[in-house]
Amino acid sequence: MSESIPHWLTKQADLAPGKMAIEHEDGLAISFRELKESSQHFAKKLAQLGITTGSRVGVLSANHSDMVIAVHALSYLGAVAVMLNTRLTDNELNYQIHDADVAFVLVQEHGPQLDASVYTFSEIKKLEEKDVFLQTELNLDDVFTIIYTSGTTGFPKGVMHTYGNHWWSAVSSMLNFGLDKDDKWLAVLPIFHVGGLSIFLRSVIYGIPAYLLEKFDANKVNEAILTKDITIASAVPVMLKKLTDALGSQTYPDKFRSVLLGGGPASRSLLEKARTHKIPVFQSFGMTETSSQIVTLSPDHALDKPGSSGKPLFPAQLKIDPSENGIGEILVKGPMVTKGYFNNKSATERTFVDGWLATGDLGYTDDDGFLYVVDRRKDLIISGGENIYPSEIETVLSRLNVIREAAVVGVKSDEWGQVPVAFVVKNGETTAEEIMEFMKNHLAKYKLPKEIHFIDKLPRNASNKIVRAKLLDLLAE
Amino acid sequence: MSESIPHWLTKQADLAPGKMAIEHEDGLAISFRELKESSQHFAKKLAQLGITTGSRVGVLSANHSDMVIAVHALSYLGAVAVMLNTRLTDNELNYQIHDADVAFVLVQEHGPQLDASVYTFSEIKKLEEKDVFLQTELNLDDVFTIIYTSGTTGFPKGVMHTYGNHWWSAVSSMLNFGLDKDDKWLAVLPIFHVGGLSIFLRSVIYGIPAYLLEKFDANKVNEAILTKDITIASAVPVMLKKLTDALGSQTYPDKFRSVLLGGGPASRSLLEKARTHKIPVFQSFGMTETSSQIVTLSPDHALDKPGSSGKPLFPAQLKIDPSENGIGEILVKGPMVTKGYFNNKSATERTFVDGWLATGDLGYTDDDGFLYVVDRRKDLIISGGENIYPSEIETVLSRLNVIREAAVVGVKSDEWGQVPVAFVVKNGETTAEEIMEFMKNHLAKYKLPKEIHFIDKLPRNASNKIVRAKLLDLLAE
Repeated sequence: MSESIPHWLTKQADLAPGKMAIEHEDGLAISFRELKESSQHFAKKLAQLGITTGSRVGVLSANHSDMVIAVHALSYLGAVAVMLNTRLTDNELNYQIHDADVAFVLVQEHGPQLDASVYTFSEIKKLEEKDVFLQTELNLDDVFTIIYTSGTTGFPKGVMHTYGNHWWSAVSSMLNFGLDKDDKWLAVLPIFHVGGLSIFLRSVIYGIPAYLLEKFDANKVNEAILTKDITIASAVPVMLKKLTDALGSQTYPDKFRSVLLGGGPASRSLLEKARTHKIPVFQSFGMTETSSQIVTLSPDHALDKPGSSGKPLFPAQLKIDPSENGIGEILVKGPMVTKGYFNNKSATERTFVDGWLATGDLGYTDDDGFLYVVDRRKDLIISGGENIYPSEIETVLSRLNVIREAAVVGVKSDEWGQVPVAFVVKNGETTAEEIMEFMKNHLAKYKLPKEIHFIDKLPRNASNKIVRAKLLDLLAE
Repeated sequence: MSESIPHWLTKQADLAPGKMAIEHEDGLAISFRELKESSQHFAKKLAQLGITTGSRVGVLSANHSDMVIAVHALSYLGAVAVMLNTRLTDNELNYQIHDADVAFVLVQEHGPQLDASVYTFSEIKKLEEKDVFLQTELNLDDVFTIIYTSGTTGFPKGVMHTYGNHWWSAVSSMLNFGLDKDDKWLAVLPIFHVGGLSIFLRSVIYGIPAYLLEKFDANKVNEAILTKDITIASAVPVMLKKLTDALGSQTYPDKFRSVLLGGGPASRSLLEKARTHKIPVFQSFGMTETSSQIVTLSPDHALDKPGSSGKPLFPAQLKIDPSENGIGEILVKGPMVTKGYFNNKSATERTFVDGWLATGDLGYTDDDGFLYVVDRRKDLIISGGENIYPSEIETVLSRLNVIREAAVVGVKSDEWGQVPVAFVVKNGETTAEEIMEFMKNHLAKYKLPKEIHFIDKLPRNASNKIVRAKLLDLLAE
């Protein structure tokens, strides 16, 4: 049966009106009452544009409290927030805007050329308010956000998150970490990713402040953790590495209880270094489809289960299927898992098997039930916490007539974990510079291959599939 | 959409196999793995009797780990646990057994003459195991327990609790209290009441031990809290009073973070006394239908909101309707609220209005949204945390031919909060002793009137309703 709960921000503003919801590095802070009131005013101004129940509205912004207010405002209208990645090119953004049928995009500042009506947060604030009904309850089955993930076909798919997905994700995390009413969660991950967004929803559900940083700067993050009573921070490995490097001989305070580490595996040396700085690390496995972490390893097991991603959170389940010698595709299930991709029934049907989400990643579980991820889904490259699918880059390359075929692999990088490298078989005269110039218009900067190698033909196996391992061997040579 | 989660005990046994689930005062303890295994074995033995999905099985026991195992065993079979109050007479028990269509009753020891097949826990343990499917998931919409409440008609009604009701209750409580993985919850309330049962479900959901006491003894409870690392205890006001009386000059340890107080209002003097003993008291309002607390007042507000029951828990809502001068019936809504009474559609329809549960209690909310209960539902008498409905006693009295009519009121008691007192208009020759003798066969001891007064006629108003206030005036005279 479909459950409803009171609108979570209205509720928290009622339970803890004067408590801080968002704190900024400049010392400014917004209470739950203020966040509710700002969001409700913002909602009534958005209504003036015709945004209403079910409208899909793009949100394109760096981390800022205005962005959080905009997202809550959309929830008051029953509209859907399509969270857009600021690192994407206009072409990539417009693909998502068309796919999600987005008529309005809310931005921090004008710039991108988008196929939609674009308003800055400031422009919205200057609008008159329309007297409309604001949601007093949230139906857990209603879709709240759409976040695109590229996936294996080269075409991004819009992952739908219901209010229930976000709710269960927050509750699952609480059952794992516990909840101290004095918790304060540092938010430096981009809010347009589910890992960043979820911090602001947990803040509202738990009644704790999120400490918002606009961008990652190791010294600023360390300073915040050392002096601002922060107890939890979400990060990706590349960030954790920079944090430990910048700490010198300092250690994190006792009240700091965890770094929740997502976006790819952490090396043993990084974990050991974190330990010397008294940084408890919860490694996790998750993806946009699981509304952030779904499998988590507590610091207690960091050393006796090295390389493991841990166990599925309380309401979640995991299985390996089909299993050959114990290794197989990782399937997950639970109320935080998306119900599917927006307007893409075939992708949804391909991804779900009897209610289980097929992650595409390969792994196994040990006798104690701990998950080990052996291989990332379909050659996924994780670079600085961002997912890059080779197929997406290959699709762009294949549009050039001078290229016969191309393959992309992830290469280890000390700084980013991995970076993409392209192998190209020419079909005519071209240069690496020409190819890069073309790609810059179609791919976000972080997706651009760091090297382009020209080869005579791609290594293929008997069934004509590209053998990426051989490409890596070529590089080694 | 109907959500499923992994079976909560199996899951906790997987996440924290070696952690203690139940601790006893004799020092014995059961880990989550042991609790799971015992419950699964017990389930397979119950299956031997033919107990299966949907079977309604009575559980009649004082607080004991066997009782907890039996309840979890029923969940593995998908059977429904009908929790029977050990204080009831055989007649009262059989009413519930017939009403819920119970074929089997599990007891601690033989004794009561029940209209069902009765097995002790020990007898079950001696049975062979049947190889049956044990639930691996819990569908949150499935009914897990039925607990009877008397209500206003004099006939008890079976309140159905789904797994979801219990789940949401546990999550709501966690959002209110926070959750420390070192929490330990003292369980001395009867497990046959929802307030006691819920402690053992929270234990499994949170992964924390329940400290089980078979019966209330102020010195034993205090000793446990002072020496056993207990952080939370559930109690009713009469218990809290005895605990503070027995404490002498001692105070509770700093790590003890709350008494969750249910089952009726606490006096200001009791709250002040608790404070001198460093006992943080969370007063609450709830009932069987709300799966324990649904409105809670934190200790922060005990003094600035004296007499208030607090605010509805995060996923819950409250309204006063219809409101005259701000006072009206208290209606509540939320995913912890029962979907209705077993096999009693008319009572369910009477109780629910547009998805809201009409509590029958009168109250108002102040400008900050804090609830004040003005009058308990339909003259409800709360004696030592047990609910007594005057109508139930009156119905029994009316069966005696020598009684023309009778009315029961609650009278203040230092020891019990309230006790019932009966006013009887005779129809022939009888004595108070005769009447008491008759009632003893039909009413639990705690429901027996402490006094019987013979009067010439009952005071009635213009519409012929009994004016109970006038009966209280008679007593005062």
